[in-house]
Amino acid sequence: MTGWVRIAGLGPGAEALVTPEVTAAVQQATDIVGYIPYVARVEPRPGLTLHASDNRVELDRSRHALEMAAEGRRVVVVSSGDPGVFAMASAVFEAMEAGPQAWRDLDVTVLPGITAMLAASARAGAPLGHDFCAINLSDNLKPFALIAKRLRLAAEADFAMAFYNPRSKSRPEGFARTLEILNDACRDARPVIFARAVSTPEEEIRIVPLPEAMPEMADMRTMVIVGSSTTRIIDRPRGPIVYTPRSALA
Amino acid sequence: MTGWVRIAGLGPGAEALVTPEVTAAVQQATDIVGYIPYVARVEPRPGLTLHASDNRVELDRSRHALEMAAEGRRVVVVSSGDPGVFAMASAVFEAMEAGPQAWRDLDVTVLPGITAMLAASARAGAPLGHDFCAINLSDNLKPFALIAKRLRLAAEADFAMAFYNPRSKSRPEGFARTLEILNDACRDARPVIFARAVSTPEEEIRIVPLPEAMPEMADMRTMVIVGSSTTRIIDRPRGPIVYTPRSALA
Repeated sequence: MTGWVRIAGLGPGAEALVTPEVTAAVQQATDIVGYIPYVARVEPRPGLTLHASDNRVELDRSRHALEMAAEGRRVVVVSSGDPGVFAMASAVFEAMEAGPQAWRDLDVTVLPGITAMLAASARAGAPLGHDFCAINLSDNLKPFALIAKRLRLAAEADFAMAFYNPRSKSRPEGFARTLEILNDACRDARPVIFARAVSTPEEEIRIVPLPEAMPEMADMRTMVIVGSSTTRIIDRPRGPIVYTPRSALA
Repeated sequence: MTGWVRIAGLGPGAEALVTPEVTAAVQQATDIVGYIPYVARVEPRPGLTLHASDNRVELDRSRHALEMAAEGRRVVVVSSGDPGVFAMASAVFEAMEAGPQAWRDLDVTVLPGITAMLAASARAGAPLGHDFCAINLSDNLKPFALIAKRLRLAAEADFAMAFYNPRSKSRPEGFARTLEILNDACRDARPVIFARAVSTPEEEIRIVPLPEAMPEMADMRTMVIVGSSTTRIIDRPRGPIVYTPRSALA
């Protein structure tokens, strides 16, 4: 048997947002590797081994996947959202680059998924309809000073901004500082979207003007999107729509 | 019959990258509205009317979709990729905001899709695995000076960058200027990915160092991704992998 690794995105939560390509890879797999809540989304079946591991062991998990593929197993590494956006794809390639030369001969591919910011954007309207950036607010892997610099430059560039991992229990102060920096840089009441657990039964969408955005509005299941200076709100009986027009002509 | 509009993303091209949610919406639709090549991706069937229109009539198309929904029809507006990223969602909301008040009562939702940058990123490895931005290089709807400013700020922020609509026949000089600005701002040989027609039979992936990137390497079917200063290449017999490590710690 020829082994392989598929680094697959399960989307934000709903089965209706999993691509057929990913579903087919899971059906062909002998092994599923990933963070506990994502592996839990895969239906057990005979012949399929589920390897669920805790958060923050991404490199161990990646090496394990590559080792199994080298032994001829068909391994799907699962991420939520898209595996290439603040998820497992970079971790697997870091492990490959640092590992035995033979790992470079393995059949390893990435299967894209619906990433959280696009699912959240769709629920709110189209806040990312013009130029935007995506920033991981976790300071596990970069100094907060770099985050702060990027926030200021992104505001100056007038990007809409999508924030992954806005707030962790262990470091709650980072997101408060993020909001301070944005208020200082933007000085307006552009919409901020807090999109929690999008496409799951626990989904909650909250839209507030930037000066009223509070750190407590986000947790680790929340995606935060901040509009650009041109982002608009359409008031409706059905609830507001937030969108960024396509044009930036005066 | 209660009408609705679903603004749906068909993904980059392959059927295996269309979400089940979008497939179901198309099955329930009475009308499909969109740009000719995207409407051509929908299988004709009795009871389904296909309304294909040319490029650059996004607002007319949007009004038509909203009018039909107001008459009780079930309308799917199709985009390639994700409808919220440089595609039809913002156009529909622009039309809604400028249109009759009754349009705000309509059931209009956005169904996300696999956007081109994530499909291209997956094919190349994981170039967007750290903070990044997405910029539409078309200057139809914004002055090139704004594009230039964003490019310089994005380079200073050390974002990886994904470029949509890099090069049109009518304005080929914009992408040449983009490459000049990037070379001037970055002054290194970071990888640039030209990903053409990803997930279709015409797919071509080309990876070159920034100083060797040439305007002719892109056309309107090409997605361009420029790495950050930390983006790496893994050389392999199977072809290179481009990825951006998760960590920005020294």
